[in-house]
Amino acid sequence: MEPFEIHILGCGSALPTTRHNASAQVVKIGNKQFLFDCGEGTQLQLRRNHIHFSFINHIFISHLHGDHTFGLIGLISTFGLLGRTAPLHIYADEMLEKVMKPQLDFYCKDIKYPIFFHSFNATKHHTMFEDNTVTIEAVPLEHRIPCYGFLVKEKPKRRHLLGDVANFYKIPAYMRQAIKDGADFVSTNGEVIPNSRLTKEADPSRSYAYCSDTRPVKAVCEHLQGVNLLYHEATFAESEKERAKLTYHSTAREAAEIAREAGAQKLVIGHFSSRYDDERPLLDEAREIFPDTVCAYEGMVISI
Amino acid sequence: MEPFEIHILGCGSALPTTRHNASAQVVKIGNKQFLFDCGEGTQLQLRRNHIHFSFINHIFISHLHGDHTFGLIGLISTFGLLGRTAPLHIYADEMLEKVMKPQLDFYCKDIKYPIFFHSFNATKHHTMFEDNTVTIEAVPLEHRIPCYGFLVKEKPKRRHLLGDVANFYKIPAYMRQAIKDGADFVSTNGEVIPNSRLTKEADPSRSYAYCSDTRPVKAVCEHLQGVNLLYHEATFAESEKERAKLTYHSTAREAAEIAREAGAQKLVIGHFSSRYDDERPLLDEAREIFPDTVCAYEGMVISI
Repeated sequence: MEPFEIHILGCGSALPTTRHNASAQVVKIGNKQFLFDCGEGTQLQLRRNHIHFSFINHIFISHLHGDHTFGLIGLISTFGLLGRTAPLHIYADEMLEKVMKPQLDFYCKDIKYPIFFHSFNATKHHTMFEDNTVTIEAVPLEHRIPCYGFLVKEKPKRRHLLGDVANFYKIPAYMRQAIKDGADFVSTNGEVIPNSRLTKEADPSRSYAYCSDTRPVKAVCEHLQGVNLLYHEATFAESEKERAKLTYHSTAREAAEIAREAGAQKLVIGHFSSRYDDERPLLDEAREIFPDTVCAYEGMVISI
Repeated sequence: MEPFEIHILGCGSALPTTRHNASAQVVKIGNKQFLFDCGEGTQLQLRRNHIHFSFINHIFISHLHGDHTFGLIGLISTFGLLGRTAPLHIYADEMLEKVMKPQLDFYCKDIKYPIFFHSFNATKHHTMFEDNTVTIEAVPLEHRIPCYGFLVKEKPKRRHLLGDVANFYKIPAYMRQAIKDGADFVSTNGEVIPNSRLTKEADPSRSYAYCSDTRPVKAVCEHLQGVNLLYHEATFAESEKERAKLTYHSTAREAAEIAREAGAQKLVIGHFSSRYDDERPLLDEAREIFPDTVCAYEGMVISI
């Protein structure tokens, strides 16, 4: 299977610390790269993590708080300095384009590539990106301002053609795609070879969900059912539950409850408040509810 | 003498690397702190270098290229999150306020402190900041867009009152400031004690100049005459002199020539192009002309 990896570039909350950068992560599927959020310093984190700038064509911004957006202008500007010509697509609340326009007009007037801003549908769960192998859905969250989770899904894959069987029946090249899609094969003497003898099961279609920043939202669990990996914010511990409610964030326990409810296979918690010098208590709290939990950290790579 | 220190937070040029951050430095004089330029990631560099955010009340921006300004919005926003109430003064080209306004209105509408933008005089050398002990002058440089060097000077200081002599003559407290300013003392029996017997030499008034980004400018040398420490950009080596001219930057040799011409005591070079993995050749080149040269690096502290 081709790699499906999450590269954590920043998993701190609003106040950056020497331990955590502002939010950003790269989802790599094969040679495609999707950037989720772009806090200050993201371009430097991309360099530190040896992620090729030129493969980043789609940036998704969960919401318009500075710790998720302040790195955009620097990244866009650097793309320009590096001579980029490929279009850049930015998916975000419609206000982003308005707020960035004066900056882009002033600092980036010489860039040689187009930037396309795609606005989210403000109210409902919908597919906002789709190509031949992947869909990315926006899932409304509950934060102080409009905010979306992202659900990345591989599309159903083709079955594997069994090489020795294909050779035995001398299956011509032009028919192989159809057989991978499930067709039977009719040999020159009219014998029908059922697909099940020619192919084996397709690789599973994997999925990843990114939910930051948000109160725990039950409705989200339906959209994420059976997700392979869930990144859910856990800004606070249960002891700060009132503050979590007040600021529209989640506790580690609440994040774990969402993972359990959604039937996630694995949970990674992040968006840690700067008050924690050590996230171990958050991890312990989450694992009580959902044992297969890990803490995000800068430089972490999780394979699905 | 109270400390007069330069803290280098970033000394790379436009493309950030894993070795160098975008331009920013803090000039500390006693408990005053002045921030010169504010590239992306400056707030994190301030944290890493244990510089107190609350003592930063004055930010000077040399010119409006992103590698000198993109860290401002994050810093301003963080000041707000930390509950700052003290006014913040930003000295920059007048366009900065216009470009930042939509961002400030959107991201920082809840901050509880006022921001005052002070525009530079666009054409000539002038004093742009002055308090009881320090002046900061703007010195026009030559870059692709309007750009200024900053010359920080301590004002002349008071002479030191000799404690044992003052006690011997029973000089009352209320007269001591005048004596430190040069007055003689007349004792109760009419004897005139000349100031030279009561005081010793004032500490020297120190100075620091920051010149980034610029072609080497002869006229600048006059304004900087005898400066204690000069930070001058040296984006390129002599081998890239044509590129230096084209992009309105300086070579290390040219920076050293400016230091020599200005009669500087010490030179620190910075704003290194991302093409150099090792600045030793730049240093060697500068030292041929001006031996007392050092290379800037992130985390460097230079005392004057």
